[in-house]
Amino acid sequence: MKLKLFELVGAESNRPFSPYCWRIRMALAHKGLDAELVPWRFIEKAAIEPSGQGKVPVLVHDDKWVFESWEIAKYLEVRFPERPSLFGGTQGQALSRVYSNLGDVHAGQIVRFVLMDIYQHLDAANQAYFRETREPRFGMTLEQVVVDRDAKLQAFRDSLGPLRNVLKVQPFFGGDTPLYADYAIFGQFQWARAISDFELLAADDPVAHWRTRLLQAFNGMALAAPAYP
Amino acid sequence: MKLKLFELVGAESNRPFSPYCWRIRMALAHKGLDAELVPWRFIEKAAIEPSGQGKVPVLVHDDKWVFESWEIAKYLEVRFPERPSLFGGTQGQALSRVYSNLGDVHAGQIVRFVLMDIYQHLDAANQAYFRETREPRFGMTLEQVVVDRDAKLQAFRDSLGPLRNVLKVQPFFGGDTPLYADYAIFGQFQWARAISDFELLAADDPVAHWRTRLLQAFNGMALAAPAYP
Repeated sequence: MKLKLFELVGAESNRPFSPYCWRIRMALAHKGLDAELVPWRFIEKAAIEPSGQGKVPVLVHDDKWVFESWEIAKYLEVRFPERPSLFGGTQGQALSRVYSNLGDVHAGQIVRFVLMDIYQHLDAANQAYFRETREPRFGMTLEQVVVDRDAKLQAFRDSLGPLRNVLKVQPFFGGDTPLYADYAIFGQFQWARAISDFELLAADDPVAHWRTRLLQAFNGMALAAPAYP
Repeated sequence: MKLKLFELVGAESNRPFSPYCWRIRMALAHKGLDAELVPWRFIEKAAIEPSGQGKVPVLVHDDKWVFESWEIAKYLEVRFPERPSLFGGTQGQALSRVYSNLGDVHAGQIVRFVLMDIYQHLDAANQAYFRETREPRFGMTLEQVVVDRDAKLQAFRDSLGPLRNVLKVQPFFGGDTPLYADYAIFGQFQWARAISDFELLAADDPVAHWRTRLLQAFNGMALAAPAYP
């Protein structure tokens, strides 16, 4: 049995920084699965062509190619049912999906804080690709997207209210121990840490304490990855 | 065994319209439990004094008084474990809590659409209480709160995105059948229906289709309650 995970990196091949790849790195650790980690950059479309699309994470399990973080998580649950569950059963899986969607919303918010930090971690060829593909999406230059980021910070923190209120009364979204729901939210924070020193959370925020617990999970796996303190 | 649920009503005692009481009405139906429904109005604090606080829902189970919707749901799960689960297990319960918090956020949004409709459904004594307690909270008159409600509608609909994306791919937040997570969100929509003809959702919204499914649940219990079509 062989597992291989294509992960987004920039100029440094040991600094993975995709929120969606981090969801899967945590999910693999949760299942106690070792995977070969393959550094991948935006323009390396050919390497993941067998997946039938052009984004990571892409998981290769023997000769089976799986893409998209939620699909990969479900795949791991089905193929490795004897290992710790990512969802806590069928109903837990149904209930977990909203966390994946909330995480996607956060990704859309956080990118407006760290867009230039991403850019600065890319090599020249990927910088050109990034500017060319992202600027039309935002309808402005990369520099313009982040220019008022300080003014947007409080609104982002406020938007975490429903999640924060959960973490005031239980250590993880999954309860006493984390589940995929936790990783689906954590991915965005680890992505930001990996490439930016912009602090998304106040130090005394219950969300920050939860982030610390996940940084320390699996023998400090996420904490040990290259990141800004 | 005797169950009694104090439910918020206005001038008409058969028109319950609290979002939190509706969460519990649905939870009781889910468990197949019959409860005596006791109409209760804002100023009737004495009737629920044994609960130790002044808000509904309040559930009385034999001589045990329980208040606050999430606490009541947990209580029902613990005391009636042989009946259909509201959460889908311990991890499902942990994962469900965020729905309760998201529902609270919706309540805070929806009240800005239906505040005057609530007022108009109260008798004179409760109208006076309502104006006196709510206007300081909003820092303006009741009339002022809703004056620009049409302009706020799209932002509310947009904020449902993460939930909407779940309902595009599964019939309920709980999966193929509803769980308390569903009722925690549905309560707000049923509250609004009960006292207002202001349409919160576009007809083709997956959230509207899900609302219809819950209106029809339990032999159309919520559909049969007094409400605006």
